[in-house]
Amino acid sequence: MLNNTKDIIFIGKKPLMTYVTSAIIQLSAMPTITLKARGLSIGLAVDVAQIIKRKTNAFEIGTVKIDSESLESTDGKTRNVSTIEIPIKRTW
Amino acid sequence: MLNNTKDIIFIGKKPLMTYVTSAIIQLSAMPTITLKARGLSIGLAVDVAQIIKRKTNAFEIGTVKIDSESLESTDGKTRNVSTIEIPIKRTW
Repeated sequence: MLNNTKDIIFIGKKPLMTYVTSAIIQLSAMPTITLKARGLSIGLAVDVAQIIKRKTNAFEIGTVKIDSESLESTDGKTRNVSTIEIPIKRTW
Repeated sequence: MLNNTKDIIFIGKKPLMTYVTSAIIQLSAMPTITLKARGLSIGLAVDVAQIIKRKTNAFEIGTVKIDSESLESTDGKTRNVSTIEIPIKRTW
């Protein structure tokens, strides 16, 4: 079974609290998850991490990584898009 | 004189390349600068950092910090806004 797949939550276009809830549910089952986002969703990922941290003292934010990815757009050109990875750890 | 003030660049609503240019100019005079942004500008700050890093091998990104700030809005309520700090170091 792919036990590893659910420790990454991709932040996209759903409402903020959808990601907060699913992150907290995942953190009850495993010690660390990672929020990943790219482009315009980067700000939302930071918001999700901050809300989780503020809610309780049970979680802390690890080392944030920023990077960029090359994507091929529909016109065949390569575009670079910024990405962010925010690890969140359970403190208990 | 306030020598220290210009090692922080606040990312706001100006065009992307304005910040890239002023960051690179600052980095020719000092070894480290920090990009700061909050709310909707967070994604732009990540883009600025990535463009600077991609341009040359002369710069590297340090430990990214995310946090939140309490602001009082015009209706008197307190709102939390997410913030990001991205240090950029000269490698030479």
